[in-house]
Amino acid sequence: MISPFQTAETLDINDPLKDLKSRFDLPSDTVYLDGNSLGPALKSMKSAMAEVVQEQWGNGLITSWNKHNWIDLPITVGEKIAKLIGAAPGQVICTDSVSINLYKLLSCALNLNAGRRIVLTESTNFPTDIYIADGIKSVLGNDNCQIVLCPDANILDALSEDVAVLMLTQVDFRSGKLHDIAKVTAAAHSLGIIVIWDLAHSAGALPLELDAWNVDFAVGCGYKYLNGGPGAPAFIYAAKRHHRSIKQPLQGWMGHKAPFDFEIDYKASQDIRQFLCGTPPIISMHMLNTALDIFEGINMQQVRDKAISLSLFFESLISESKSCTSLELASPSEPSQRGNQLAYQHPDAYAICQALIARNVIADFRSPDILRFGFSPLFLSFSDIAKAVMTLESLFETKSFLDPKYNQRHRVT
Amino acid sequence: MISPFQTAETLDINDPLKDLKSRFDLPSDTVYLDGNSLGPALKSMKSAMAEVVQEQWGNGLITSWNKHNWIDLPITVGEKIAKLIGAAPGQVICTDSVSINLYKLLSCALNLNAGRRIVLTESTNFPTDIYIADGIKSVLGNDNCQIVLCPDANILDALSEDVAVLMLTQVDFRSGKLHDIAKVTAAAHSLGIIVIWDLAHSAGALPLELDAWNVDFAVGCGYKYLNGGPGAPAFIYAAKRHHRSIKQPLQGWMGHKAPFDFEIDYKASQDIRQFLCGTPPIISMHMLNTALDIFEGINMQQVRDKAISLSLFFESLISESKSCTSLELASPSEPSQRGNQLAYQHPDAYAICQALIARNVIADFRSPDILRFGFSPLFLSFSDIAKAVMTLESLFETKSFLDPKYNQRHRVT
Repeated sequence: MISPFQTAETLDINDPLKDLKSRFDLPSDTVYLDGNSLGPALKSMKSAMAEVVQEQWGNGLITSWNKHNWIDLPITVGEKIAKLIGAAPGQVICTDSVSINLYKLLSCALNLNAGRRIVLTESTNFPTDIYIADGIKSVLGNDNCQIVLCPDANILDALSEDVAVLMLTQVDFRSGKLHDIAKVTAAAHSLGIIVIWDLAHSAGALPLELDAWNVDFAVGCGYKYLNGGPGAPAFIYAAKRHHRSIKQPLQGWMGHKAPFDFEIDYKASQDIRQFLCGTPPIISMHMLNTALDIFEGINMQQVRDKAISLSLFFESLISESKSCTSLELASPSEPSQRGNQLAYQHPDAYAICQALIARNVIADFRSPDILRFGFSPLFLSFSDIAKAVMTLESLFETKSFLDPKYNQRHRVT
Repeated sequence: MISPFQTAETLDINDPLKDLKSRFDLPSDTVYLDGNSLGPALKSMKSAMAEVVQEQWGNGLITSWNKHNWIDLPITVGEKIAKLIGAAPGQVICTDSVSINLYKLLSCALNLNAGRRIVLTESTNFPTDIYIADGIKSVLGNDNCQIVLCPDANILDALSEDVAVLMLTQVDFRSGKLHDIAKVTAAAHSLGIIVIWDLAHSAGALPLELDAWNVDFAVGCGYKYLNGGPGAPAFIYAAKRHHRSIKQPLQGWMGHKAPFDFEIDYKASQDIRQFLCGTPPIISMHMLNTALDIFEGINMQQVRDKAISLSLFFESLISESKSCTSLELASPSEPSQRGNQLAYQHPDAYAICQALIARNVIADFRSPDILRFGFSPLFLSFSDIAKAVMTLESLFETKSFLDPKYNQRHRVT
């Protein structure tokens, strides 16, 4: 009988992306299945650090705004991301956080559709997206903004000509359930609805064609599959056709068309810079800028294909295992219907996750009972997957996750 | 006759803060008079970088949210800043940018004073402050928000019971003109006005007593006198008495009272965390956290006293100089009436600034005709000041700043 490790070895040999793993600085003996929460550090981060702290800040001081072109860094990073998400130049900018960016975009979208007031989203959406919509509603009042949470999987049925904005996350953060952006966007557009996509679990993970899919607006995260570091700044995509008809209220000086003229009147930049607000966190943004270089020359379909293979391998090992039977798949069983992750439901999910981490297999727990495994194809091997499942199997065999120490709750889960 | 350098040497010997300069990593032969735009890097930044990138992110990965307490970093940094601005614990948090934070606070303040609609500020305020107020007005509409720009120095005369919010920057970014926070706040309060102070050029520069002065709200900058690095995150001060009666609309998940419960309903944290929004830029924030350690054991009155001495020395050398006569002081002549900077008006201010930079004396230009010199007492010596003025003097003697190369405009000025 062939062991999982032997199978993994063969799969690794034939993996066209196998060489990328060596560019990451992962702790030895760790299987990191949480790159979709926080991507790991690339080896290039060390020199990136020295470059931005010692050379640019330390030696260049204030002159680096010009000399090292900090002033364009949000654009530089944005254009690198644009290539990953199918956006022609001039439509993506790196700025602020996903939450802040949703506030900007929801404001724009509600304005574009001023005759309507409904923001439609899913009740399973990542909470911050819903919170931000609620924050806008608190400012605009019920007469101008109403939030409808669609409890159901079938968002298409909830579309109507009353809806101003449809705000969806492409990949559900818990289950991994995947939306068809092209199809949903087209359906929404046919009813005059503006669509905002949250690509937190998509950018750097899935092939995306935002221009071809006629997307209006999108946001995405710099610290998940883009590996930009903890709290790396986020990004905004805004289709060029909207640039001159929108206005976002977080109008700080960096979004002014001539910030250093210090005029009293705000005149928004007419391009993608209109989404900038205050001075960006250059050090964090520089790290993201460097991290993005790993995508150079990589085909996103290859990335997606490998993620699917990793997840199928994981799934098959789990279902073949006689000890892991109490894990219930909470993700769509069809790989094309889910993002690059698998979620399993288990009443002891929290303790299992902690016990795995104690054994250097880093997974994620999502309240109340979800074990989440992320398959970041740039640094994971099939051997990593075999090791992870074998560790999980031995946990179930020994029931060692029932040790009370694994149930001590951390602040962040 | 005693030369300026001899005088400077004596002043340096007697400077109680002289030892701090060695903790900064300034390029040799550079006199940096722009610490009020971007504070320089401390030597400790190298190990801070290694700590956050290699140890916390690289090795700790996602577990560092707990293990290295990233989740509390905005509070940790906030409490360090609190000590510099006279705030008891629980009232300061590090988050987002000054612009974003003003949006939050203006929203709160307008709500607290719901019967009124006027936001009063000065037309000389830093533009982003005015832009943000204008952004809020664009959402709320003219019926609910009106911005009054007081063109005059005398803000006290502009106060009235129609004013909802008074928003002022303590130190004028161009001239350095200084407001008396205690006096202005008391006058505003007597008319029922909520006051927001922008401490961009104050925190880390001047002794502040926000609690004692009964301040409502304040924002401040992490990358000027706090030396946190380019675009370091900003901070918010909110007096505890307001915490339970405010609500800010940028309500991202980090401001939720239980972010990891992933509830659908936003329930704002009841403490200072309610001002958090999205995931903070941990790397940039960690740098600021480390940079703040230089203030440990330092008395802010000493810092202020030295800044005044530096500026008086600078001023005296300029006025004694026979060649610098065309420089016209644009700051208040009385040191107690200005922040830690001096502004001089000159028709060739831009070219002079560039020529100074070419000679390793880094000053700042502020459109249209202001040369600005910042006196950061932690790393500047009196010898630095002598060198700066001597350089300026030789520029005027040779008129070399008239070389056209110094008039080529940069993107950032």
